[in-house]
Amino acid sequence: MDASLSALADGLEPDDLIVDGGNSHYRDAVRRAKALSAKGLRYMDVGTSGGVRGLERGYCLMVGGDAADFQRLEPVFASLAPGRDAAPSLAARSGRSGTAEHGYLHCGSHGAGHFVKMIHNGIEYGAMAAYAEGLQLLDSAGAASGYRLELADITELWRRGSVIGSWLLDLTADELARDPTLAGFSDKVADSGEGRWTVQAAVDAGVPAHVLTAALYARFGSRDNDTFARRVLSAMRFAFGGHREHGD
Amino acid sequence: MDASLSALADGLEPDDLIVDGGNSHYRDAVRRAKALSAKGLRYMDVGTSGGVRGLERGYCLMVGGDAADFQRLEPVFASLAPGRDAAPSLAARSGRSGTAEHGYLHCGSHGAGHFVKMIHNGIEYGAMAAYAEGLQLLDSAGAASGYRLELADITELWRRGSVIGSWLLDLTADELARDPTLAGFSDKVADSGEGRWTVQAAVDAGVPAHVLTAALYARFGSRDNDTFARRVLSAMRFAFGGHREHGD
Amino acid sequence: MDASLSALADGLEPDDLIVDGGNSHYRDAVRRAKALSAKGLRYMDVGTSGGVRGLERGYCLMVGGDAADFQRLEPVFASLAPGRDAAPSLAARSGRSGTAEHGYLHCGSHGAGHFVKMIHNGIEYGAMAAYAEGLQLLDSAGAASGYRLELADITELWRRGSVIGSWLLDLTADELARDPTLAGFSDKVADSGEGRWTVQAAVDAGVPAHVLTAALYARFGSRDNDTFARRVLSAMRFAFGGHREHGD
Amino acid sequence: MDASLSALADGLEPDDLIVDGGNSHYRDAVRRAKALSAKGLRYMDVGTSGGVRGLERGYCLMVGGDAADFQRLEPVFASLAPGRDAAPSLAARSGRSGTAEHGYLHCGSHGAGHFVKMIHNGIEYGAMAAYAEGLQLLDSAGAASGYRLELADITELWRRGSVIGSWLLDLTADELARDPTLAGFSDKVADSGEGRWTVQAAVDAGVPAHVLTAALYARFGSRDNDTFARRVLSAMRFAFGGHREHGD
Repeated sequence: MDASLSALADGLEPDDLIVDGGNSHYRDAVRRAKALSAKGLRYMDVGTSGGVRGLERGYCLMVGGDAADFQRLEPVFASLAPGRDAAPSLAARSGRSGTAEHGYLHCGSHGAGHFVKMIHNGIEYGAMAAYAEGLQLLDSAGAASGYRLELADITELWRRGSVIGSWLLDLTADELARDPTLAGFSDKVADSGEGRWTVQAAVDAGVPAHVLTAALYARFGSRDNDTFARRVLSAMRFAFGGHREHGD
Repeated sequence: MDASLSALADGLEPDDLIVDGGNSHYRDAVRRAKALSAKGLRYMDVGTSGGVRGLERGYCLMVGGDAADFQRLEPVFASLAPGRDAAPSLAARSGRSGTAEHGYLHCGSHGAGHFVKMIHNGIEYGAMAAYAEGLQLLDSAGAASGYRLELADITELWRRGSVIGSWLLDLTADELARDPTLAGFSDKVADSGEGRWTVQAAVDAGVPAHVLTAALYARFGSRDNDTFARRVLSAMRFAFGGHREHGD
Repeated sequence: MDASLSALADGLEPDDLIVDGGNSHYRDAVRRAKALSAKGLRYMDVGTSGGVRGLERGYCLMVGGDAADFQRLEPVFASLAPGRDAAPSLAARSGRSGTAEHGYLHCGSHGAGHFVKMIHNGIEYGAMAAYAEGLQLLDSAGAASGYRLELADITELWRRGSVIGSWLLDLTADELARDPTLAGFSDKVADSGEGRWTVQAAVDAGVPAHVLTAALYARFGSRDNDTFARRVLSAMRFAFGGHREHGD
Repeated sequence: MDASLSALADGLEPDDLIVDGGNSHYRDAVRRAKALSAKGLRYMDVGTSGGVRGLERGYCLMVGGDAADFQRLEPVFASLAPGRDAAPSLAARSGRSGTAEHGYLHCGSHGAGHFVKMIHNGIEYGAMAAYAEGLQLLDSAGAASGYRLELADITELWRRGSVIGSWLLDLTADELARDPTLAGFSDKVADSGEGRWTVQAAVDAGVPAHVLTAALYARFGSRDNDTFARRVLSAMRFAFGGHREHGD
């Protein structure tokens, strides 16, 4: 990324403005803005959220950088953003101006766009894990209680009026409708960096983030990289209790 | 509840059908169905989700009980349920019949309705905590990083196209638009039972539920009922390190 | 257990006393004491901790039941218990009488012995997990930082003067000295019930127990019973991000 | 620290050796060793554990740096370390040479001493929290079950033969013997940095550390810095359920 930026910067002219629309760390955005500024160049960090369906559904824009640069680019942001009709208006906002309802926002100075995007992804990790754990329980605790629950139907049902309606639920219901066993999907789950940064931000700020962290660790654990810890437990159990695990 | 049911049952005639639309434990539903059946009465457990706004927005119905009873009551369920238009149709479900898309579902035998509602609430706890922790981090980690983030605008922004769009987010954005400090709300958070039952179901089934449990415990912790545990930590720190906490 | 007790009770005479030295739930102890009392029999619940090495090292006795029964059996408890010399005397207890320093204790009425044993095991789960996670980090985070750490030596080192010295550490160091890879031990870890009861007690009491619960769930997770939850995550990631996991 | 080192370095002569026996981050140790090396000076990082009672009880030494420097200082380490008699010999180590049994160890290159100390403290956080949560449960779940448990006696009892015997338990029993309510201790618990570094190391390595992290977060939470998150939960509960919390 730094290499690309450097190469790009070489071909630019003073006051040209680079928009970093990727998933960089917000501290890198601060650093890059400063470095480019020294070359007379402008920089904005723009976190986006919407995924691969953003083209049809729209995606929102979380912008960090100088106010003047934001104004300069605002026509672009306004044109890319999903617009006011992408969600029903909220009663409490009536009469309030601002761009948030249009789907783009100047969040603050350099890095603020990526910072807000980072936290967005942290929330995403937690919300995803909430559905995943719940569906696991429908499946296994349901079976243990004698029920054979149709997860595709239940998630479809919850899309209508329930408290947990969400776009993530829509996507999940859609995949479960295709195959309720999700057999085509891996049980090893990757993480893309922003969940880690969110946890690091929580640790740095000294704020508990039990749920977001547990969601991240569940992904780590899915990749079986804690097998030594587990063997330590088995070794202790054997040493004090004579228990010999019968595992693999 | 059992007392009300018993009183109610006394005034009923054979084949009358009682619908339990509250938040009972699913095992109680099984027990009650059996007890009422011995008196010639019918019983269905119907979990509902939609909250106080259900009147305007609709609420979905998770039904447990005998198939014949479900058919008997289906016109009622169909009339109460939010209907097909309450959510956009999913591509993967096209051509599929069933009632889930109408907002009501026969989930299984007695107790299945309350079981599914219980897990629904477990997910709700986890998803709520994900937003709560994220907003806390926007606030405090944001401040620690030098940003003053407008949470009302950011949550409004995320309602348009982002991956974490949800009804819970809509409600949160609405409250933050009213008062971004949420000063009118308590930092002691109650729990209503179903989150506890979900954790117990996870423990019974031997399935990890890190996120849902952490969300429940965060509510417990908000009520300051772990102060002795904290003093134990302070006592240890003093004993081995000579640290004297400066707290209250 | 109830069957054995019943068979045993048939052969007993009034005022005979049954000692339940197993790992029963404390509520069962209360129930059994009552049932046996109706037959004129006495019952005590005695939790023990010491493991398979208890014969050489001694094991402590956590006793629940009536005070008169405790007095009646006290010579037995005193003879079985490890005695005062099993641990150095604490300054703060000098001049205090009582049996705790001898290694046996009347904890309270029926069930109190098993209750205390249950919590003991809950603590055990948490402490074991603390070492297990730490050793995993020495191994993998150590390697990621360029260190090749000798876990057998490090755990041996920590046995001398460190804050985390414990019998569990002694056992761990012993096993690591035999084989620092612990290759003979399974990475599937069983749980014996009391950890689950501890979590249920926390949920019932509305008290957060993040650490003890996470330790239990780590064992659940070691048995790969959350693979559906993981596939849900992968399905969501594919649906919104186009990510296709490359796992198995 | 860097300022002190720099000032100190100015007064030293080539080949002089600085020992950093504090709680620095291991990456700082690597950096400092390099910086001092450029000035012809030697550097070792030595983590110690033993607390304020180390003078009487001994404290172990976790050493990082060059092998030649370790040999040069070994007489000092051997003289400071608690020695072989500080803990019973383990069967599995008989016939093995090395220094770990004497209470000091060359863990690896620069930073390895502080790295091992960091993980030591991570384990310490987890083990402390295990006892703290267990004692909280004895107290509150015990009361909810109708028992009035004497925590001073129970912890004293567990010191004799139980699986959870440890120095931390000794210290806890001692404090509880002084005052079973621990009224003199704060319920706000500080953290000293190394617990945070451990969590960061886990996140960097992509390894789950549920227990160690939950222990750290419990300390964060004790300082009431998540009140905004809690108000978010209350606001959501009000918005969808009409629940108005009655807290403070």
